[in-house]
Amino acid sequence: MLDYALLAALAAVIRGGSFERAARQLHVTPSAVSQRVKLLEERLGTILVVRGTPCVGTPAGQRLCQHVEQVALLESELRHELPGIQDSGPPVTLRIAVNADSLATWFVTAMAETRDCLFDLVIDDQEHSADWLCRGEVLAAVTSGVKPVQGCDSTPLGALRYIATASPDFIRRHFPEGVRDGSLALAPRLTFDGKDQLQAQWTRQVFGTEITSATHWLPSSQAFIDAALAGLGWGMNPEMLVAEHLRDGRLIALIPDQPLDVPLFWQRSRIASGRLADTTRAVLRTAGSMLR
Amino acid sequence: MLDYALLAALAAVIRGGSFERAARQLHVTPSAVSQRVKLLEERLGTILVVRGTPCVGTPAGQRLCQHVEQVALLESELRHELPGIQDSGPPVTLRIAVNADSLATWFVTAMAETRDCLFDLVIDDQEHSADWLCRGEVLAAVTSGVKPVQGCDSTPLGALRYIATASPDFIRRHFPEGVRDGSLALAPRLTFDGKDQLQAQWTRQVFGTEITSATHWLPSSQAFIDAALAGLGWGMNPEMLVAEHLRDGRLIALIPDQPLDVPLFWQRSRIASGRLADTTRAVLRTAGSMLR
Repeated sequence: MLDYALLAALAAVIRGGSFERAARQLHVTPSAVSQRVKLLEERLGTILVVRGTPCVGTPAGQRLCQHVEQVALLESELRHELPGIQDSGPPVTLRIAVNADSLATWFVTAMAETRDCLFDLVIDDQEHSADWLCRGEVLAAVTSGVKPVQGCDSTPLGALRYIATASPDFIRRHFPEGVRDGSLALAPRLTFDGKDQLQAQWTRQVFGTEITSATHWLPSSQAFIDAALAGLGWGMNPEMLVAEHLRDGRLIALIPDQPLDVPLFWQRSRIASGRLADTTRAVLRTAGSMLR
Repeated sequence: MLDYALLAALAAVIRGGSFERAARQLHVTPSAVSQRVKLLEERLGTILVVRGTPCVGTPAGQRLCQHVEQVALLESELRHELPGIQDSGPPVTLRIAVNADSLATWFVTAMAETRDCLFDLVIDDQEHSADWLCRGEVLAAVTSGVKPVQGCDSTPLGALRYIATASPDFIRRHFPEGVRDGSLALAPRLTFDGKDQLQAQWTRQVFGTEITSATHWLPSSQAFIDAALAGLGWGMNPEMLVAEHLRDGRLIALIPDQPLDVPLFWQRSRIASGRLADTTRAVLRTAGSMLR
């Protein structure tokens, strides 16, 4: 079997970003950490950490890091089933992929109901969060795909509702004669990143065809709203985050009664289902009360 | 010289993520876009786009994409100096690296004062945003490094003030006898990502030594605050974002009168200084009124 003392040192370096930090976490000297990582690299015959500021795992190092976390998870399930064994290790870290807008609206509430573990969140588009699960890099994911990833269970969470919004001033400037396909093609929009299809999806839903235009690229849920408020562009914003702005007239729906509902799913690895049980309960309960 | 009609098709595919979207933007058919990209790949003898959902640029494709944007920028400077030439092209896109907390606090205000261009924001830690500038992948960056990147001008922006905060309940549970080095080592903290040094920096400032502990990983400024409010951990939050929570007692400073001030700088490529002049003015003015 692998040497888990060496693997723990590797994981601490990759997660903490430096040998010094790993040393403090493991209560040993930095040179002890360095020796353990070097020994592991020699035994496995491959470089595992790119030394730098911060230290970053190579693909092999990252994969081993995941493996250590999976083993820690299995150990923690073991301790659940054999309560005689004292839980002496650090709390288990659950690595989960979540879309930025879920994190900005309801996901932290679910996290707060799961007290006995730590979360390591990866943010990716809901159309791509399942890829992390396919690659085995996370234990669970909030996705928009219905189809379960192999080896995973999938439960519908409800839909996150989006409204196409812009500031009153922006609407006056760009849509003096109403929001039409022609005026939409000329008005700057907001796009989260290259994976963000929501603006395109909404134009397809409303006009039957995709309308493109010049865009700002803004990879942050809150900055998306701030930019809409500041009149930089129009964008799809979660209703939960803009309800107050819409009520007070700081933002206006481009077209009334044309929300975009994005159905979300909670997909989790069957191998980790025991340890994820608390989190799954909290996620389903929170989504049930906050999503549509 | 390179064929810029082919390059424009490539950039539209990489920026838009699909051949269909690029086609609509360029007002041609998807097969015309596909032919142009293929021709460019044949001429240059290398694959430029990984076909998928979304389409992603290879390193060579990304580099060409940057080049197209730099040329567009030079063209737009030309049009400024020769106003007789009609500005028929799309607005210029300025690619800028900014730290998440600047984007969450003051940067959108600066963007809103620069109306005649589009922004393509890359989010990275203030200690690492200068790397994007070094690699020539952005035109400007909000950084924490004083030393100017080669070929760049650097202007101090003031400091973003951080407060170590947690919920009253968290403080009662984890620091019943006050915030000491021993209790800090046992209390879960919040960390943005592997590059985030702020929590460590603050423990060094207050206790003279770095204190590590178990951590949640949460790469979002707003989720950081939400997680602190929910009692998941303590973390360094920008004073601007938590002032109200501190006033109302929903969050408490771990130690009063121990803020962490992070000085920020506006670094921009000299080659683009003309076209960035408006943005630079807006950034310096906004930072001057919102930072310390």
